[in-house]
Amino acid sequence: MTRSPQDWITAFADALDSGDIDGATALFHSDACWRDLLSFTWNIQTVAGRPAIRAMLHGTLAATAPRDWHLTGPVEAAGDSQSAWLGFATASAQGIGRLTLRDGLASVLFTAIADLTDHPEARGPTRPMGVAHQASRSRHTWAEDRDDRRARLGRQDQPHVLIIGGGQGGIALAARLKSLGVPALIVERNARAGDSWRNRYRSLVLHDPVWYDHLPYLPFPPNWPVFCPKDKMGDWLEAYVQAMDLDIWLSSTVENAVWTGAGWQVTVRRTDGPVTLTPTQLVFATGAYGPPRAIDWPGADRFAGTLIHSSAYQDGRAFAGKRAVVVGAASSAHDVAADLWEAGAQVTLVQRSAICVVQSQTLMELGFEMYSEAALARGIDVDRADLLAAATPFALFTQGQRELYARIRARDADFYARLAASGFLFDFGEDDSGLMMKALRTASGYYIDVGTSDLIASGQIGVIAGQGVAAMVPEGLVLDDGRIVAADLVVACTGYQSMHRAVAGIVSEAAARAIGPCWGLGSGVRGDPGPWRGELRNMWTPTAIANLWFHGGNLALSRFYSRVVALQIKARMEGIATPVWGGPDQGGA
Amino acid sequence: MTRSPQDWITAFADALDSGDIDGATALFHSDACWRDLLSFTWNIQTVAGRPAIRAMLHGTLAATAPRDWHLTGPVEAAGDSQSAWLGFATASAQGIGRLTLRDGLASVLFTAIADLTDHPEARGPTRPMGVAHQASRSRHTWAEDRDDRRARLGRQDQPHVLIIGGGQGGIALAARLKSLGVPALIVERNARAGDSWRNRYRSLVLHDPVWYDHLPYLPFPPNWPVFCPKDKMGDWLEAYVQAMDLDIWLSSTVENAVWTGAGWQVTVRRTDGPVTLTPTQLVFATGAYGPPRAIDWPGADRFAGTLIHSSAYQDGRAFAGKRAVVVGAASSAHDVAADLWEAGAQVTLVQRSAICVVQSQTLMELGFEMYSEAALARGIDVDRADLLAAATPFALFTQGQRELYARIRARDADFYARLAASGFLFDFGEDDSGLMMKALRTASGYYIDVGTSDLIASGQIGVIAGQGVAAMVPEGLVLDDGRIVAADLVVACTGYQSMHRAVAGIVSEAAARAIGPCWGLGSGVRGDPGPWRGELRNMWTPTAIANLWFHGGNLALSRFYSRVVALQIKARMEGIATPVWGGPDQGGA
Repeated sequence: MTRSPQDWITAFADALDSGDIDGATALFHSDACWRDLLSFTWNIQTVAGRPAIRAMLHGTLAATAPRDWHLTGPVEAAGDSQSAWLGFATASAQGIGRLTLRDGLASVLFTAIADLTDHPEARGPTRPMGVAHQASRSRHTWAEDRDDRRARLGRQDQPHVLIIGGGQGGIALAARLKSLGVPALIVERNARAGDSWRNRYRSLVLHDPVWYDHLPYLPFPPNWPVFCPKDKMGDWLEAYVQAMDLDIWLSSTVENAVWTGAGWQVTVRRTDGPVTLTPTQLVFATGAYGPPRAIDWPGADRFAGTLIHSSAYQDGRAFAGKRAVVVGAASSAHDVAADLWEAGAQVTLVQRSAICVVQSQTLMELGFEMYSEAALARGIDVDRADLLAAATPFALFTQGQRELYARIRARDADFYARLAASGFLFDFGEDDSGLMMKALRTASGYYIDVGTSDLIASGQIGVIAGQGVAAMVPEGLVLDDGRIVAADLVVACTGYQSMHRAVAGIVSEAAARAIGPCWGLGSGVRGDPGPWRGELRNMWTPTAIANLWFHGGNLALSRFYSRVVALQIKARMEGIATPVWGGPDQGGA
Repeated sequence: MTRSPQDWITAFADALDSGDIDGATALFHSDACWRDLLSFTWNIQTVAGRPAIRAMLHGTLAATAPRDWHLTGPVEAAGDSQSAWLGFATASAQGIGRLTLRDGLASVLFTAIADLTDHPEARGPTRPMGVAHQASRSRHTWAEDRDDRRARLGRQDQPHVLIIGGGQGGIALAARLKSLGVPALIVERNARAGDSWRNRYRSLVLHDPVWYDHLPYLPFPPNWPVFCPKDKMGDWLEAYVQAMDLDIWLSSTVENAVWTGAGWQVTVRRTDGPVTLTPTQLVFATGAYGPPRAIDWPGADRFAGTLIHSSAYQDGRAFAGKRAVVVGAASSAHDVAADLWEAGAQVTLVQRSAICVVQSQTLMELGFEMYSEAALARGIDVDRADLLAAATPFALFTQGQRELYARIRARDADFYARLAASGFLFDFGEDDSGLMMKALRTASGYYIDVGTSDLIASGQIGVIAGQGVAAMVPEGLVLDDGRIVAADLVVACTGYQSMHRAVAGIVSEAAARAIGPCWGLGSGVRGDPGPWRGELRNMWTPTAIANLWFHGGNLALSRFYSRVVALQIKARMEGIATPVWGGPDQGGA
């Protein structure tokens, strides 16, 4: 079949125009995926296979009223596929999309809202003028307006959106909302923007490279280091808040939030006392994880040494020459172990189960190909790379990751052989799809190696593998096999609860249960039970609790999906119809 | 003649390779210009005509040893000319250039250093890694290193470069030097970075549009306003200093600087007392202007009202209902007059001579074509636009400006007719080359209209034209014609001394005189006496005083030429031969 992308969208548009859903569906392969960000579904949804595509069109076509389909770029051929970027319009938005054809039928369609038609973001050609070029006796200067806005905010004026948490997620979202003209306030418990990074352990450095880590609107400068140290990241976030003129209450915590039927009533504890706010929307940007998992080993209270959760670990220098045991084997465990080793401690890792390890250099070269100087040289900037990533449904991404990890394992066979010889347990996931899929499925179980694996392989950090902690005694840990491991310090790198647990403390236990866990695709692997959902649970979409949202993730996810969250909130604020197809996740956990 | 750009550089390279200076010179038109930034001359020089080109080659070819000439982009045809970007190498640097041919001979050649071969700037593909991906017991974190650096700077460690002034010029230069690995310290008298903008008068907004105003490395975000209010600019500079990790001493002033024969001995007054620094290089980044011109009207001490220089003006609200007289008619005078009018004062402008006025919108559309969203859409980003601007010698730029102002005057004929009817005196320079040439030649005598001209044309701000101030009396001003103008407030917008006068107070009067004035091209117009130099006096180049530099100008000039200054200083720090051709300006003023 020789249908070109242009032919295809013409046929697709004709079918949709005439309400011929079966005809439109017939233009897809039987195993095709269609991923939509808001434009049809006002949700983040991927449908796979003709019946699901047909169902989605039945549920969304009338309200969406898509039109003006056109290619916006050249046709790109790869193997037996052709791909092209496309544009379209809906009842309320301008859309962007990407089509991949094989044998004249769509194998993948991606559709997303680019801008709300009547409320486009003020950027580039539509940026604000900043000043009326006309003398005026009622002029307020920018600084006067800003000072006035800040003085009134939370008193005379209410933020439309309250963002809990001023890390990268909250800050990125606030910047998007501001650019869309939505009044937002960040509440951050730390004293300075960026402290969420500064307060982490001493030697922390970003494990992802710079090209993947940009914030919205303001890319890192070209002389920024590939791997950013945590304090430099903290300073960047603080400078960003100032440069973007975001509203943030520092040293403040959200104590509780009650849905009144018309909006939220939120109590914020400031250093000068409690303040009640009444935002319309409430966003949890409290970190990709929920609260730390409690340490519940029997006998922990009798341990004579120091016992802390990794979230409380900052600096190992007090433990030079001492015996430090790190329980766990994922990112935090590796970083804490290395920090302790650098501080001169005798370090042992107690590892129950296998995790996925990839060398940073390898991952950067093979896994971050779209986010690199090489991609930039080909004209793929961070925004284009984000769209390419978003245009790939998770099912296909998983397959691509399997191929990637086959290459990685071949390339780094020596590294993995040395690591295996140390006794350290590693794997690439139940389906060999590797690190990123572990992150998406369970937000745990991986380490991007920035040096610790070598300390393990060379025996400078000891490993006890295949053992969990059964109990604690005054002198240390008791393992599952009864062995006692003596310790002066035990760092429990035992992970975090799901993000939705933060809701329990602030809204209610019932709300947290109604929402259910965040993250996970329904992959059917341990920690991510099926059925397959195809999208991440509860992230960046409407949840089971009205006007309550989750936003977060690493810098890349925070950057891209902040726009998705902001567009949904903006549309609701402007009274645009936003019928949600596919519904929120149903909790129950 | 059909010689193509490729043929031309082949012939040019062959001639240079064989030392055939006459042959190389014969490849230029008799009236050709060659502008060089550092690559041949280690200076900023434009030579015009074959004899001058020949002389420059005689003076520079042996030491430069240029080679590897090649085109780096497609040939661009315009009228009867062909242009192309090119690359080359010299004994110590990678070069970039642009060639314009007419009838097979060069009409314009531009050459510049892009990078020092053995000391390339760490950016893009050569950016720093930021971390050694290897555990190390001697690890210093980024924050520890930074704190240590700041604690030692000026005590145990000396900055290689001391930059006097932390406005946009000093900050941009410090960022360039940091990126080149040159230790630099900014000394800024204000309490916060950005205060040089915040401390200006209340209603100040940048008159140049955003696309022209980017700082190095970190462009304004796409939602930044076209015209940035002064306090927002102040915040941006402060955020920039933090994000770029620049070293700045705030609330500090440079009291004096003495050349010791090996370097500078500089006394800096900090809030905690004086500190003696011994930098190798001293940069005056004290603003595009020198100190304010003293108000020397006879009887000024008897004036019963308030008399201030425009540099001290901040806010007119205390003068609501009062009689305010603004002496002068250039940018400051317009802005102060409008601010007073907005505050409710009765405002009169006393104007001695004509100035150039252009409406902001017109200038943005016609004059900033290369710095615009439209240019961005054509792939011309700010760095490319800067190179295009730099590649145009001032003699040709002047001609282009004459053509531009002919268009502007035709387009805005109604505006100029209304302004003329008010009695306000305006012109377009002695040779009709307009606003930008006035700025370059005399750093004065122009106004980009952001609203005040309408107040003047409509009579809401009064104008007394063709009169200077002869004296002051208790009730106001006495004009040249003997008229008395009563006033409660007189703001003397009488301009500033040349930038080199700042040297007199810090180094010595003799040094200031040896250097002579900054700015001016030798145009032969009032305020810019000939002979024609073709480049700006003393800016960004070696001066008559060794290791003393001037850096500054508007945001655009500060951005582009900060790199030129930084490369010269880096080369000297690294011991690279930097024979200066064309010599520094000879002062005498």
